Amino acid sequence: MFEIIKKSKENNARAGKIITSHGEVSTPVFMSVATQAAVKTISNEELRAIGTELFIANTYHLYLRPGMDTIEAAGGLHKFMNWERSIITDSGGFQVYSMSELRKISAEGVEFQSHIDGSTHFFSPEKVIDIQIQLGTDIMMCFDECPPYPSTRDYAKKSLDLTLDWAKKCKDQLMNSPLRRVNAKQRLFGIVQGSTYMDLRRESAQKTIDLDFDGYAIGGLAVGEPQEISKDVVEKIAPLLPENKPRYAMGVGTPEEIWEYVERGIDMFDCVLPTRNGRNGQALTFSGKLNIKNARYARDFGPLDNGCECPVCAEYTRAYIHHLFRCGELLSLKLLSLHNLYFMLKLMKLIRIAVIEDNFTQSKVEFMEKYSLIKDNN
Amino acid sequence: MFEIIKKSKENNARAGKIITSHGEVSTPVFMSVATQAAVKTISNEELRAIGTELFIANTYHLYLRPGMDTIEAAGGLHKFMNWERSIITDSGGFQVYSMSELRKISAEGVEFQSHIDGSTHFFSPEKVIDIQIQLGTDIMMCFDECPPYPSTRDYAKKSLDLTLDWAKKCKDQLMNSPLRRVNAKQRLFGIVQGSTYMDLRRESAQKTIDLDFDGYAIGGLAVGEPQEISKDVVEKIAPLLPENKPRYAMGVGTPEEIWEYVERGIDMFDCVLPTRNGRNGQALTFSGKLNIKNARYARDFGPLDNGCECPVCAEYTRAYIHHLFRCGELLSLKLLSLHNLYFMLKLMKLIRIAVIEDNFTQSKVEFMEKYSLIKDNN
Repeated sequence: MFEIIKKSKENNARAGKIITSHGEVSTPVFMSVATQAAVKTISNEELRAIGTELFIANTYHLYLRPGMDTIEAAGGLHKFMNWERSIITDSGGFQVYSMSELRKISAEGVEFQSHIDGSTHFFSPEKVIDIQIQLGTDIMMCFDECPPYPSTRDYAKKSLDLTLDWAKKCKDQLMNSPLRRVNAKQRLFGIVQGSTYMDLRRESAQKTIDLDFDGYAIGGLAVGEPQEISKDVVEKIAPLLPENKPRYAMGVGTPEEIWEYVERGIDMFDCVLPTRNGRNGQALTFSGKLNIKNARYARDFGPLDNGCECPVCAEYTRAYIHHLFRCGELLSLKLLSLHNLYFMLKLMKLIRIAVIEDNFTQSKVEFMEKYSLIKDNN
Repeated sequence: MFEIIKKSKENNARAGKIITSHGEVSTPVFMSVATQAAVKTISNEELRAIGTELFIANTYHLYLRPGMDTIEAAGGLHKFMNWERSIITDSGGFQVYSMSELRKISAEGVEFQSHIDGSTHFFSPEKVIDIQIQLGTDIMMCFDECPPYPSTRDYAKKSLDLTLDWAKKCKDQLMNSPLRRVNAKQRLFGIVQGSTYMDLRRESAQKTIDLDFDGYAIGGLAVGEPQEISKDVVEKIAPLLPENKPRYAMGVGTPEEIWEYVERGIDMFDCVLPTRNGRNGQALTFSGKLNIKNARYARDFGPLDNGCECPVCAEYTRAYIHHLFRCGELLSLKLLSLHNLYFMLKLMKLIRIAVIEDNFTQSKVEFMEKYSLIKDNN
């Protein structure tokens, strides 16, 4: 399912492609976040227009709403959304982590209360795989426990063991589940945990690899730890993961982080940054982050980003989007989100070309220099 | 600027076209409402895709935000929005009417407080024309006073006289304003007032016609009066208006009302219904109004409207939009609004063809029968 096209001569970066039953995905890839079966404010047509090949939806959210009966009646998530390209699903592990006051973890799984109506539910590794089988997504994630930052070594070790036990159960369930398959070629990724303890991270990586998954994620990043620590974890752990399988840094990241992590051997990323920051008025540009609310844009009749080929920059000016945002027009949230997603996809192409042409270091320096030009208070 | 293509043999309906410096507009026409220089949630690309030829923006709102300096710097409203087809602007008369506690009316104009920051402003007929000259919209409306319902005969008479005096001043200002023209071919419409007093309505119509405008609106409708009264006003007044000029029923209306008013000789309509109701979860369909929030749509995998060719119905199901709406996904507001706008434009085509083919009465009956099929609690 994964093919490396080029390995950098400068560092651990790779350019490749993931093949799913819904198409090819060029890597390194940034995946838009479609938590509730929609990338916030963006239509399928718009996702296609900017070249989206893969996005990430969420098992926990879709299980609660619309619920598996609806998804099954629709014939899976692709049909429910009418999205014909690839979809990956997060397992709900991170959501369970986020709602620490609403859940009880045991060896068998997690009991939690719905954030919508307070109703009680139970996720076991088996159940989470069954849900993902019903969703029919192209890449499934194992159900993991994501330790908070900071965690004690003892907690991190117990959490790691639990995640490993669940990973094995997930793999077995994918083989043995009696559920009807809407997608015969679903792939399953294991997740490396271990918090900030490098020996635990190594242990987690090795034992997860031993279980043999289709790809490997580094989880428990971007949970509040200092950036130097996450960078160090990725630097040490990514090279331990099998070279011929995709590597995924969950919940990462900013444009700067993506350069750093690709350099260290990561192929896949997901983050709410382009859409969430877009809804807060931030436009990502190759000259830096721009706060469209700033008065300086009121009569700036240039596009959000000079030289940008996205549908938003082709049509609208900073002044117009500034006006819409200040008036509370919802259209502005869509325009900023769509531009930002395009920016991320263009960034990934730029990085990919830098890998293929062996000028990663130079391209990264050039990007970083320009990306700090705009000094908006964001 | 107006050409009648067909007069119905059955009633007072007409099919025609309005020609502006930004293109042709087939009539009868339903104009989407772009109060703040955007049809709520909808992009230019989407407006073009569904065949929008003309929408209505608002002088009062645009004067306050983004303000005339910005509009002037952009080179007019068309350039500010990047909209190359026709635009009409309401004069602000209705907004002044709506904020009865924030304004003071005198013979010279209206002093009012901004709904945004409470700052004090003054609109005279001359000022309102100057603003519309700066906006450069294709059709401008005279500054009028819109009496509330109910109004005493005395109030309605005084209001009518004021509106007539302002209409004359508006026309003079359009000729004599020293402002630079971004649109050399702006047209100006007069507005008939007179509340529910038919003799006052007739007087207003005659004296407005005497001033000779490019088109005539019937104002003061849809302000809370019984539908029978508004229908009666239109039935009596429309035929008094010059046949060779477009006739516009301001703020109207529902699909049912549009049939009634076209039948009585009206050519132009505007209403927030398709977008506002869309944002509240209502889909307009040729089988009636559908409330997408209803549980019955949770597993309804048909389109919003069977047989609809709009971009929303081509892509998404009721079940999916139901899910998005219940999750609070902003995308659902856009999808419902866009579908509803398409519905209105399709309705207008249907009505136009009924006029041209002289089967208005039958088409109307058929529409009305089908349009009441869905019994959703809206």
